[in-house]
Amino acid sequence: MLNSLSYNLLTPAQICFGWGRRAEVGELARGLGERAFLVVGSQTLCRNGMLADIQQRLAAQEIESIHVADISHEPEVADVDRLVEQLRQHQPATGDFVMAVGGGAAIDLAKAAAAIVTNAAAGDSVQDYLEGVGRGLKITAPPLPMLAMPTTAGTGSEATKNAVISSYDPPFKKSLRSDAMVPDIVLIDPELMVSVPATTTAYTGMDAITQCIESYISRRRQPIPQALAIEGLKSAVPAITTAVANGDSRPAREAMAHAAMLSGMALANSGLGMAHGVAAALGVHCRVPHGLACAVMLPVAMRTNRAVARDELEIIGRTIVDDELRGTAAVDAGIARIQEICDEVKIPHTLTEIGVSAEQIPEIVKSSRGNSMNGNPLELSDAELTQILEGML
Amino acid sequence: MLNSLSYNLLTPAQICFGWGRRAEVGELARGLGERAFLVVGSQTLCRNGMLADIQQRLAAQEIESIHVADISHEPEVADVDRLVEQLRQHQPATGDFVMAVGGGAAIDLAKAAAAIVTNAAAGDSVQDYLEGVGRGLKITAPPLPMLAMPTTAGTGSEATKNAVISSYDPPFKKSLRSDAMVPDIVLIDPELMVSVPATTTAYTGMDAITQCIESYISRRRQPIPQALAIEGLKSAVPAITTAVANGDSRPAREAMAHAAMLSGMALANSGLGMAHGVAAALGVHCRVPHGLACAVMLPVAMRTNRAVARDELEIIGRTIVDDELRGTAAVDAGIARIQEICDEVKIPHTLTEIGVSAEQIPEIVKSSRGNSMNGNPLELSDAELTQILEGML
Repeated sequence: MLNSLSYNLLTPAQICFGWGRRAEVGELARGLGERAFLVVGSQTLCRNGMLADIQQRLAAQEIESIHVADISHEPEVADVDRLVEQLRQHQPATGDFVMAVGGGAAIDLAKAAAAIVTNAAAGDSVQDYLEGVGRGLKITAPPLPMLAMPTTAGTGSEATKNAVISSYDPPFKKSLRSDAMVPDIVLIDPELMVSVPATTTAYTGMDAITQCIESYISRRRQPIPQALAIEGLKSAVPAITTAVANGDSRPAREAMAHAAMLSGMALANSGLGMAHGVAAALGVHCRVPHGLACAVMLPVAMRTNRAVARDELEIIGRTIVDDELRGTAAVDAGIARIQEICDEVKIPHTLTEIGVSAEQIPEIVKSSRGNSMNGNPLELSDAELTQILEGML
Repeated sequence: MLNSLSYNLLTPAQICFGWGRRAEVGELARGLGERAFLVVGSQTLCRNGMLADIQQRLAAQEIESIHVADISHEPEVADVDRLVEQLRQHQPATGDFVMAVGGGAAIDLAKAAAAIVTNAAAGDSVQDYLEGVGRGLKITAPPLPMLAMPTTAGTGSEATKNAVISSYDPPFKKSLRSDAMVPDIVLIDPELMVSVPATTTAYTGMDAITQCIESYISRRRQPIPQALAIEGLKSAVPAITTAVANGDSRPAREAMAHAAMLSGMALANSGLGMAHGVAAALGVHCRVPHGLACAVMLPVAMRTNRAVARDELEIIGRTIVDDELRGTAAVDAGIARIQEICDEVKIPHTLTEIGVSAEQIPEIVKSSRGNSMNGNPLELSDAELTQILEGML
C-alpha cells in the first residue's frame, strides 16, 4: 500500500484518436463554439488540401474558421504577442475558440495566445507571464477554449498545461503555465503524420520517449502518470525505428501518436528531468532542435540517475526489453536499449556533433535550470552538470 | 505493435486527490461558477459538520450554495424528475453548477438532473432519455457544469459519463448516458470516507474491483483504460480487507478511493461485462445492493470468461498475485485471489443467500441485457446465462 497519496491530475476532457478521424472535426468542434481561430503549423497540410478539408468540415457544422497564424519554428515571444494582437482585432467573445493544427510549435503558440488574450492588458507581453524571466503575472481568467490537432508525434503539447516560448535576445526558453491551459478537446489523426520527414519523426519520437522516461523517474512522479508513461513506452519503443524508416507504416504512426499523447499526459502531471532541462538550454544557445537535444541527453540522463532512480529504471528496463529481467540487469538493459534506438535513428553521441563548443558550456549550465531540471531525481550542482556536459563534447 | 488503434477517451478535466483536500473546494469550485446546487448523499456529513464546512468554504469564495436534494438510496426516475423540477424553479443560468457530495447515488442523481434540466422540455421525464426503456431522446445541449466529491470508494461515478437510474414499477435499472455528462472537476478527499460502515466499504470496494476487472477484459477494452484498471487493481487488492476491517486506516482509504476513481475512468471508456449486467437485474428484481451483487458475480464472471479472455486474465493474475506466474497458473491464481478477497469481506457464494429464488431467474436473465452485458468477452445465450445463475442458487 502507498504511504500517502496526494495528487492533481489534469487531462484534456475529450481525446479522439484514430486514423482518418479528422473527418469528425466539425462535430467535435461544435462542442466548443461557432467561430474558430486557426493556428497552422504545417505547410504540407495547406498544400495537399487537408487544411481546406478541415475548414469545410467546420463550415458544414456552421463554424466560421479564421486562419490567424502560420508557424514553422519553435514559438518566440514576438510570435505570441503578434497573434494576441491579431486575435484582439477579432474581438473574441463567448462562442469563439482557438484551434491548432500542427506540431508542438503551433499548439504551444495557440495555447499561449488563447491564454494571454483573455488575461493580459493591452501592452503586456507573454514574457511578463513566463516562468523565471517574467514579471510573475499569472493566468487567472479562463483562456479561450481550445481544440488541438497534432500533426507530429512528439511533444505531447496537446495534453499539457504549458507552452514553451523561446527568445534569442536575451536567450531563454521558458514556459507559460496554467492549469487552465490544457486543451479541452484533442483530435489525433495519425494519418496527418504520414508526410512528416524521417528526421522530424526521429526527433519528435525521441522527445516522446524522453518525456515518458523522465516523467516516470521524476522527483514528482505519481502513480497515474507513471501508468500512462509505461503504456507510452510499450507503444513507442517497438515502433520508432519503423516510423522513421517507413513513414507510411500505419501501425508505426499510430503507435507513435498514441505514445506522444501519453507522454504529454504524464509530463503535465509529473514533470521532467535533466534531459529536458539541458535541451531547453541547447535550444536557445545552440539552436539544437528540441527532440534532437532530448535524444542526445537521454542515455546520459538515465546513467546519471541510475543510483537514485534504480527501482524505476528497473521497471523501465523490464518494460522495454524483457519482463523476466530483474535488478541491475534490467536497468542496464533498459539504458542499452535506449542507446540502441538512438543509434538506429541516427542520434549523435556527442555535443560537438550537434554544434556545441566548450566555451558555451557555462551558459548552457546556467540556462538548464528551471521547472524540468527541478524534477530530476538526482540533484546536480553546477560543477557536476558542467562535468557531465564536458564529458559529452 | 498494435494493429489498428482507435479510441475515444473521456475523463474529468481536473482531478484533485488527497487527505483533507476538501479544504480546497472553494478555490476549485470557483472555476465552475458562482452558484452551486448541492446534492447530498451522506447524512453523516450533515451531522458531523463537514457539509457546513464545505458550504462555508464555498461562501468564502463568494459562491452561493443551495442545498437542493438529499438521497440515501440508488436514484429512481421520480428522484431525478423531482430534482429537475426544483432546479427549474431556481432558473439555472450561466455561472450555475451542480455539486454532488456523496456516494454513487448522489453523484448519479446530480449528473442526471444536471443533464436533463438543460435538455428536457417541461413534462418530459428522465425516463424518456434512458437506454433501452426510454423514447430515445438524446442529451444534445451541454449539462450544467458539475463538481463531484465522492464520499464512498466504489462506483467511480465521479469519472463516468453515465448515471444509473432505477425503477421498480416497471422494474428496470438503466443508464442515462452522454459524453457531456463526465463531471468537470472531481475532488476526492479519502478522509470523508472514514465514517463509511464496514459493509458499505466492502460492497463499494468490490464494485471498484469488479469494474477494473470487467473493463480490463471487456470486448471494448482499450490500452489506456487497461493501464488505468491495472493501476486500480494494484491499489485496491492489497487494501480492501484493511479498509473493511479498519475504516480509520488512512493508507487503506486512500488506496480504495484512488482505485474507485480509476475504475470509473476505465469503465467509462471500455464498458463492463456480465457481473454488472446481472448486478443491475439483481438490483431491480431482488433489491440486492449494487456492490454486493457485483461481488457475488465476479468470481463466476472470471471463470465464465476464462477461455476467451485468457491473456487478459493472466495479466490480472500476475498483477494481483505474483508477477512471476505465467499462463494458466496466473489465471487460476487471479481467480482464487478474488474469491479469497470475497471471503475475507464476507461476500456470500450463492444467490440464495442474497435473497434470490429460482422463480426469479427468468426475469433476472431478461433484465441482465444491456450496455454492460454487451461488453462481456463471451457472448452468452439466455439458456447459458440461466444455467450459470441456476448453478449459483
